[in-house]
Amino acid sequence: MTTGVGAVVKTAKVEPGANVVVFGLGGIGLNVIQGAKLVGANKIVGVDINPDREEWGRKFGMTDFIDARNKDRQAIVDEVLKITDGGADYTFDATGNTEVMRTALECCHRGWGTSIIIGVAEAGKEISTRPFQLVTGRNWRGTAFGGAKGRTDVPKIVDWYMDGKIAIDPMITHTLTLDEINKGFDLMHAGESIRSVVVY
Amino acid sequence: MTTGVGAVVKTAKVEPGANVVVFGLGGIGLNVIQGAKLVGANKIVGVDINPDREEWGRKFGMTDFIDARNKDRQAIVDEVLKITDGGADYTFDATGNTEVMRTALECCHRGWGTSIIIGVAEAGKEISTRPFQLVTGRNWRGTAFGGAKGRTDVPKIVDWYMDGKIAIDPMITHTLTLDEINKGFDLMHAGESIRSVVVY
Repeated sequence: MTTGVGAVVKTAKVEPGANVVVFGLGGIGLNVIQGAKLVGANKIVGVDINPDREEWGRKFGMTDFIDARNKDRQAIVDEVLKITDGGADYTFDATGNTEVMRTALECCHRGWGTSIIIGVAEAGKEISTRPFQLVTGRNWRGTAFGGAKGRTDVPKIVDWYMDGKIAIDPMITHTLTLDEINKGFDLMHAGESIRSVVVY
Repeated sequence: MTTGVGAVVKTAKVEPGANVVVFGLGGIGLNVIQGAKLVGANKIVGVDINPDREEWGRKFGMTDFIDARNKDRQAIVDEVLKITDGGADYTFDATGNTEVMRTALECCHRGWGTSIIIGVAEAGKEISTRPFQLVTGRNWRGTAFGGAKGRTDVPKIVDWYMDGKIAIDPMITHTLTLDEINKGFDLMHAGESIRSVVVY
């Protein structure tokens, strides 16, 4: 919750009416979507290679979905440019894939678009782009723990949940006993769960 | 003038007391230095592989010089971290070298440091870094024409020059006649000139 909502509210400070693109609609990405909805974003575009995630995204406020299967970087950039009329104001990578991080940057509007890396990459992997992408006014940033302070910001997020401003319950797709814990990993790898809770 | 001063004042919006590092002390880099001095930066560190540029940098307000000859990225980062007590608030690449752009980013203070690419890279060259550099709070940006608007910002810079707040005259190291124009390129490639003016 803190990571996804915080990336929008604390790190990017997305303003009402902004166009937002989220790469990767797992638990983090869905929280980015509901953070974007909370602050009054205009277009909230989700991108995933798992088409089942479209329904998930829409539940949390996503307005448009891009099925990224078999699409190269340029195809995705073109689709975002079309939906957002020139590029996103903010993009978020919630995949951890360094190639996707590049796509997320290049989907930003020239002159002011900001891309935020949330995902944690494999050890040793590097991000790359042409410097022209930055010289023409895009910003490349990152966030850890959503830029939130544990003591002061987490209680706010709890309040938002208690007030019904953000949803957590629907993200718990599975409740498992401790001896089913490995099933939790299987579900995650298969892309069938968002969050599994282990009760013991 | 506009590019170097504008990168500091318009793009980065460097605040008084900030620590600034400038890579490449040619005409653009020297203007970054005087822009940083104008806004009241604290440390203004210049980095160049031409040791003759130390004297030039100091003329315009540079407080520290790093001779980058035979130093690898980590050695330069370590030196900046020492001078700035943990990393720069703002770094500027005025070299156009994509390896230097990476060094400039990695010299930034974790949590908030911002690196601005001013230099124009060779066609096809890419910048790279580990996403960890951004996730831990650094910002990678760029600027063209110093983020200045020709109609409203350039007259301001002219006023600053007329008021003696910024210097241009000392940057004109050579005045050439039109038939000496090729000598202007020779001087530039040899690192002997800052700016040559051709009179015809």
